[in-house]
Amino acid sequence: MEKMKKFVESSAFQNTILIVIVINSIVLGLQTSATVNASIGGILTIIDTVCLGIFIIEMVLKMIAYKFVGYFKSAWNWFDFIIIVTSVLSGLAVLSSIRILRVFRVFRSLKGLRGFKMISSLKPLQVIISAIGKSIPGISWTALLLMIIYYIFSIIGVTQFGQAFPEWFGDIPKAMYTLFQVMTLESWSMGIARPVMEQFDFAWAYFVPFVLISSFVMMNVVVGIVVNAISEVAEYNKKEEHEENGTSDIKAEIDAVKEHLAKLEDMLAKQKK
Amino acid sequence: MEKMKKFVESSAFQNTILIVIVINSIVLGLQTSATVNASIGGILTIIDTVCLGIFIIEMVLKMIAYKFVGYFKSAWNWFDFIIIVTSVLSGLAVLSSIRILRVFRVFRSLKGLRGFKMISSLKPLQVIISAIGKSIPGISWTALLLMIIYYIFSIIGVTQFGQAFPEWFGDIPKAMYTLFQVMTLESWSMGIARPVMEQFDFAWAYFVPFVLISSFVMMNVVVGIVVNAISEVAEYNKKEEHEENGTSDIKAEIDAVKEHLAKLEDMLAKQKK
Amino acid sequence: MEKMKKFVESSAFQNTILIVIVINSIVLGLQTSATVNASIGGILTIIDTVCLGIFIIEMVLKMIAYKFVGYFKSAWNWFDFIIIVTSVLSGLAVLSSIRILRVFRVFRSLKGLRGFKMISSLKPLQVIISAIGKSIPGISWTALLLMIIYYIFSIIGVTQFGQAFPEWFGDIPKAMYTLFQVMTLESWSMGIARPVMEQFDFAWAYFVPFVLISSFVMMNVVVGIVVNAISEVAEYNKKEEHEENGTSDIKAEIDAVKEHLAKLEDMLAKQKK
Amino acid sequence: MEKMKKFVESSAFQNTILIVIVINSIVLGLQTSATVNASIGGILTIIDTVCLGIFIIEMVLKMIAYKFVGYFKSAWNWFDFIIIVTSVLSGLAVLSSIRILRVFRVFRSLKGLRGFKMISSLKPLQVIISAIGKSIPGISWTALLLMIIYYIFSIIGVTQFGQAFPEWFGDIPKAMYTLFQVMTLESWSMGIARPVMEQFDFAWAYFVPFVLISSFVMMNVVVGIVVNAISEVAEYNKKEEHEENGTSDIKAEIDAVKEHLAKLEDMLAKQKK
Repeated sequence: MEKMKKFVESSAFQNTILIVIVINSIVLGLQTSATVNASIGGILTIIDTVCLGIFIIEMVLKMIAYKFVGYFKSAWNWFDFIIIVTSVLSGLAVLSSIRILRVFRVFRSLKGLRGFKMISSLKPLQVIISAIGKSIPGISWTALLLMIIYYIFSIIGVTQFGQAFPEWFGDIPKAMYTLFQVMTLESWSMGIARPVMEQFDFAWAYFVPFVLISSFVMMNVVVGIVVNAISEVAEYNKKEEHEENGTSDIKAEIDAVKEHLAKLEDMLAKQKK
Repeated sequence: MEKMKKFVESSAFQNTILIVIVINSIVLGLQTSATVNASIGGILTIIDTVCLGIFIIEMVLKMIAYKFVGYFKSAWNWFDFIIIVTSVLSGLAVLSSIRILRVFRVFRSLKGLRGFKMISSLKPLQVIISAIGKSIPGISWTALLLMIIYYIFSIIGVTQFGQAFPEWFGDIPKAMYTLFQVMTLESWSMGIARPVMEQFDFAWAYFVPFVLISSFVMMNVVVGIVVNAISEVAEYNKKEEHEENGTSDIKAEIDAVKEHLAKLEDMLAKQKK
Repeated sequence: MEKMKKFVESSAFQNTILIVIVINSIVLGLQTSATVNASIGGILTIIDTVCLGIFIIEMVLKMIAYKFVGYFKSAWNWFDFIIIVTSVLSGLAVLSSIRILRVFRVFRSLKGLRGFKMISSLKPLQVIISAIGKSIPGISWTALLLMIIYYIFSIIGVTQFGQAFPEWFGDIPKAMYTLFQVMTLESWSMGIARPVMEQFDFAWAYFVPFVLISSFVMMNVVVGIVVNAISEVAEYNKKEEHEENGTSDIKAEIDAVKEHLAKLEDMLAKQKK
Repeated sequence: MEKMKKFVESSAFQNTILIVIVINSIVLGLQTSATVNASIGGILTIIDTVCLGIFIIEMVLKMIAYKFVGYFKSAWNWFDFIIIVTSVLSGLAVLSSIRILRVFRVFRSLKGLRGFKMISSLKPLQVIISAIGKSIPGISWTALLLMIIYYIFSIIGVTQFGQAFPEWFGDIPKAMYTLFQVMTLESWSMGIARPVMEQFDFAWAYFVPFVLISSFVMMNVVVGIVVNAISEVAEYNKKEEHEENGTSDIKAEIDAVKEHLAKLEDMLAKQKK
């Protein structure tokens, strides 16, 4: 078991799997082309199946190494497991529409990035990345706020413009999609607001505030992340500096001075006697 | 009275109201769907009425607790009051178009967010939020500047393009809306500027400067907020640090050294005699 | 003369002029409306003429106060002078198209903003504004770089797409306008790039790099301004802090300690004898 | 040889070349206009040829000065060499379509910018520019991440929407271009997503996540560059300050105090005897 774990965690094994992932990704890309498929489609299918086989072997080896239960403790392993199971099922299934799920296997290559990030010798950049990562849960309340704003504007949109513009405001999901489009500022005026305003004179009182509010909330998110990242990096820099020549040293120096003085006092006191 | 105040301010009472707000929001959402309304529309109307009843009771209890005059000292209470009054009126009114105002009751749920923000254990994030909040009145002069720019460009737009493009520059409000669209960069060229330029060759001298000026002003707002937030967070961090191992400590240490020296001098002075 | 200068620079005089500017701006706004013009157009014209008269009197008074030559040392005064002269000329001119220039008189109200900015009690905000102002000449090289990029892409655009799309790439100014539109990302793909790509397969190799390069340059400008503003504000904060409890104090303290020690040494030296 | 090197590196020689580049750029611009070409096209062609001749002489002189091999050590020289060779070839070639390559000679003027940047007396700005430059390789992993995201979404896009929308998702390059357009938010909804959604109900589950993911990645890039630039500038400012009145001085001061104390102890010790 221990031996198996060592083998599975060896960089040789992991790099081999990474190469297989890359090959598989290229094959999946080539299969999208009709002309390529016509000439070497058979070979591609074989390579694809071989890759799938290697992934299954990898999964089984890992399951053995981590004693099955340990395997499912990693989110990445769950991800692998689901992709492989759906890939196998889609291979057997009559419904070819499920086969598309195999494409998601390409996402496995993102795992490679983790390693790449580690390699990166740029320390501050890593601090930035981790700072952004850390600030995500912190700004989740903004997501909640945005959801409430979307919900309120959706209800108003559906009730007011729903019947006249069923394509855009027919129901709440449609209204939310339209509001998302408006938030990205894509054709919000010429495409959506102006046609609506032709029937509802005061529609600008719906769209303009939404554009302003959603822009302001998104700006808050960006500012929050920037400020958080800056303060994290500043802290990191300070820590590094402390290790070199910290202000705590000055305290230590003063303490040394005090000790000297205490010694002097003692000497004088003795002299007195 | 005091007892009532305690009851109204208890978290149990406030959470109950929050749950009623959430239920009411969901009901208002469901009512937008024609199919849902057809099957359980009656039940939804009943729940909606019950929610409204609870809100009225809440308002009355709060009015008693804060002796009516105190109730109206809070902006949130005014907000509640107006929503409830319009909701009651729209329920009785013959004009069903006013009923839409009840949707605004959903905004009450934003009150819940205040609590949520308090819970947040991320101190620096709160500092950021408060920093953004504080910088808003400070950047109000930018809003004034933007208003003047809008006004000047609106007058020019109406006088120059008003007759040829009544839809976009017919009067000052229409021109302002068009300029807002141009500021968001939505279809400003293909949708607005190019058609105008077909009739007025030098229209680019109107649109391009406006795009540049408004972008620059908006960038100033963002930069202002970012810088303000950063300096506030930096101040907050410094304050925290001071509490741990402040530079004032170094001063105190040096003072201690001085005291030691004064003692030594005294001892020497005595010896002399 | 001195008395006149005092009068002209008194806040009572300046505020009166500011009020006249505001009134004149409102009148210019009202004159754009055909319905308003029909009913009270005569009164508006009279007010407008009176305002112009007051501006002429203000100008003459200032000229006397600053002995004519001194008057033209301020850019704002030049601005006033040009606006008033063109306003008078447009009033006499047969070509009514020049009359629009009078609208620019509204820009005078921007002068009022200067005062407003001074009033602002938010010190750090002023630092930000001045920091942005200071960084503008610094980033002028970016403007030059952008001009060169525009020029190169314009020449390529005109030579390649000029004959097929005379409306967008007919000559260099037209190509520059189109590139400005592309830089703002407005309809760059669906509106411009895709139609061009239908005739020129490799047009994406023209538009995609331009979008990337211009976005990168603009991002540099924003980053430059943000970083500049932050470092200016940080410097300002540090200066303020130094005035309160500077690190130089610590040095002074240590110097005091040294003096004490020197005194002790002297005392000991004397004892020895 | 040494003399030649001195001549080639003299500012007089370099400025002359810069002027020739500017003249050549203007000529290339004028040649795009049909009316200008009709009247003074002959003169322009002559100037253009003269400029090319000067560039060839410059290249030959530099080759002699740096002994041919040394010439090709600079990327800028390679750039010059390729442009000149293609310019000469295009002048001789029958295929006039290659002539456009001569326009790239204008890029040489970017070399002038290097000098301009050096002149700039704004030290912090240079730090910002170099900070942005330094952070580019650091954020290259973001480019890799973005490429993987593009690749995955391209494959999904081609497989799902390829047959229905061959213009947008016909093959992987076309899908990548469409995704780039979507990333810039240009007509992503009204132009692309909504038409696709008419045939594929769940297409929003493809476009909305892509917009969110690509926006988030791009925001990361911007935040990374801003934070990096700020920390570099802060470091630069700190270094400058250290040179003026560093914290290391405080240590030196304390060391001086210690020396005094050691002296005192010695004196006392001697007294004892």
